Amino acid sequence: MTTTSRRWVLARHVEGAPSPEDFRLETVQLPALEDGQFIARTILASVDPGMRSRLSGGDSYAGAMKIGEGIDGFAVIQVVESRNPAYAVGDVLAAGGGWREHIVSDGRGLIQKIPAEWAGRGVPLGAWIGVLGVPGLTAWFGMHRVAQAKEGETLLVTSAAGPVGATAGQIGKRLGMRVVGVAGGPRKCAWLEDEAGFDTVIDYKAVPDLTAAIAEACPRGVDVLFDNVGNESIDRVLPMMRMRGRVVVSGQVADYNVEPQDRYGLKNTSVLITHRVRMEGLVVFDDIRQFAEAQAQMAAWIADGSLKIAIEEFDGLERLPEAFCGLFRGENFGRRLVRLAADPG
Amino acid sequence: MTTTSRRWVLARHVEGAPSPEDFRLETVQLPALEDGQFIARTILASVDPGMRSRLSGGDSYAGAMKIGEGIDGFAVIQVVESRNPAYAVGDVLAAGGGWREHIVSDGRGLIQKIPAEWAGRGVPLGAWIGVLGVPGLTAWFGMHRVAQAKEGETLLVTSAAGPVGATAGQIGKRLGMRVVGVAGGPRKCAWLEDEAGFDTVIDYKAVPDLTAAIAEACPRGVDVLFDNVGNESIDRVLPMMRMRGRVVVSGQVADYNVEPQDRYGLKNTSVLITHRVRMEGLVVFDDIRQFAEAQAQMAAWIADGSLKIAIEEFDGLERLPEAFCGLFRGENFGRRLVRLAADPG
Repeated sequence: MTTTSRRWVLARHVEGAPSPEDFRLETVQLPALEDGQFIARTILASVDPGMRSRLSGGDSYAGAMKIGEGIDGFAVIQVVESRNPAYAVGDVLAAGGGWREHIVSDGRGLIQKIPAEWAGRGVPLGAWIGVLGVPGLTAWFGMHRVAQAKEGETLLVTSAAGPVGATAGQIGKRLGMRVVGVAGGPRKCAWLEDEAGFDTVIDYKAVPDLTAAIAEACPRGVDVLFDNVGNESIDRVLPMMRMRGRVVVSGQVADYNVEPQDRYGLKNTSVLITHRVRMEGLVVFDDIRQFAEAQAQMAAWIADGSLKIAIEEFDGLERLPEAFCGLFRGENFGRRLVRLAADPG
Repeated sequence: MTTTSRRWVLARHVEGAPSPEDFRLETVQLPALEDGQFIARTILASVDPGMRSRLSGGDSYAGAMKIGEGIDGFAVIQVVESRNPAYAVGDVLAAGGGWREHIVSDGRGLIQKIPAEWAGRGVPLGAWIGVLGVPGLTAWFGMHRVAQAKEGETLLVTSAAGPVGATAGQIGKRLGMRVVGVAGGPRKCAWLEDEAGFDTVIDYKAVPDLTAAIAEACPRGVDVLFDNVGNESIDRVLPMMRMRGRVVVSGQVADYNVEPQDRYGLKNTSVLITHRVRMEGLVVFDDIRQFAEAQAQMAAWIADGSLKIAIEEFDGLERLPEAFCGLFRGENFGRRLVRLAADPG
């Protein structure tokens, strides 16, 4: 059994867009296990735009990380040694833990055994930290609990090719909505229209006037804006919101790298009054008691081929910072994961 | 019976803060009544900040008024001639109709007979277009339906001495909330603390740092922000919002006079995600089916002296523009009404 393990830590507080130099790879000694603990090896690790906010210094961020702390992130892991009766050697789990080769856990926190039943039915392991993990569940509860999306309504999804947006749009189609997406580049747009079944997709890199393009694609206005981009994106669409429209504030990838005082500010809030619009954010862990139900439904859709997922894999622990930093340049196509080891046989 | 009547019309589209020159008094001929119509004389007319948005020109405003159109506003009126069996001569009504000596109506639209039962019990006629009209009902449904305010929570009310804010705060006290208000000037602040029963009132004209003063007055944060001011006011408080806090976007008196592109923009929207904050506007007519119930409750509170109301009366049709324009300089103290005739005996 190995006794050392590598992990990524924060080398310096991030200012503006993150760069690989903000992170440092270090080797740590794995402790001897105490009763109740287990060690797992990482198979797949995720990179999420939402991690960005904790990487800045200063008082302005809740939960800001300290220099030298290990980077968090969701991962698919496999138990290699255990003194916890709930977790047997060989168990494959979706868990927090992050950018590291090994995770030592006392079994507390958000840990889910990945149900073996789906493995043979076309549901990749990576889906459990993608469409069946935080991004997909954010889409699910954002569409259902927050937006209370309904048949016949128009849904606009921004950052539509990301794992949250692509799932939100497909849930919208299943609900019988007209679904319009905004994404960057012909490859993403084609996938969203041809594979994910969006009604219309706007390539924001190709249109001269994004506001006009959205207005044209949504001639009756927007009932639900599922926004993953930030204030400027929301402000653009607010004047197009229909009566009793809902804005789901799902993510703010364009704002994470900008200090709060320098951010674009929402001006068109009068629409909240005139059109009775509700704006609400979510953190998906609030819905944890309904996770199993949502996952079972979406896993079945992945298995029968009706829920399309895009997973981008990078290879090797070393590539985690690079994979993460690219998220803020809009490079990712679907869920971006980094593979540290092959799937268990 | 008089056959002519005076009314205020829009003389020019308003830019920035409204001024009396934006309005013109004209004399019109009253028509002969057709079947189903009645004529009423105006006793009290109201001025509301929310009227401001329709007074600008251009495409940016829904329902913008044309030059020469009569100015709308709620009024207490008395029927003087009727060919509508539902409205008898002498009936006293709360109705739309506006800044005019006489109103000709076909009986449709928002018209309520003012229940005679309350007149002898200390509920002034003006209350029916104040606390028992749109401002008070906005407070009621904003607090109950939108904010879902609860015992033990902290409520922050801005423009707290206005008819919406003062009512919202008193509803909050009845619900068992800790109620903090923001108002301008010692007279308003003293009334809110001594009469209306607010726990703490901040005089924004007297404190060097309003944000710090609010933070000090709300050491545990804010559960419900009932905002009547606008984007800058909301942005200041967003970072103080507690988990699952609610922002009621009730009015935007500071923003009505500013073109949308020049408005202060909300930057602190990340709180909507991190603290699961919901921001929602309301237009009270959506709750029309519950008006009678809310009015009966609040009328009883006025009658028993437990709901304090402040009414400021101006005298004479001529003073309507002046009364209105002062709203945007924060001059008003409570509900501002203009009296055109004495209460019916």
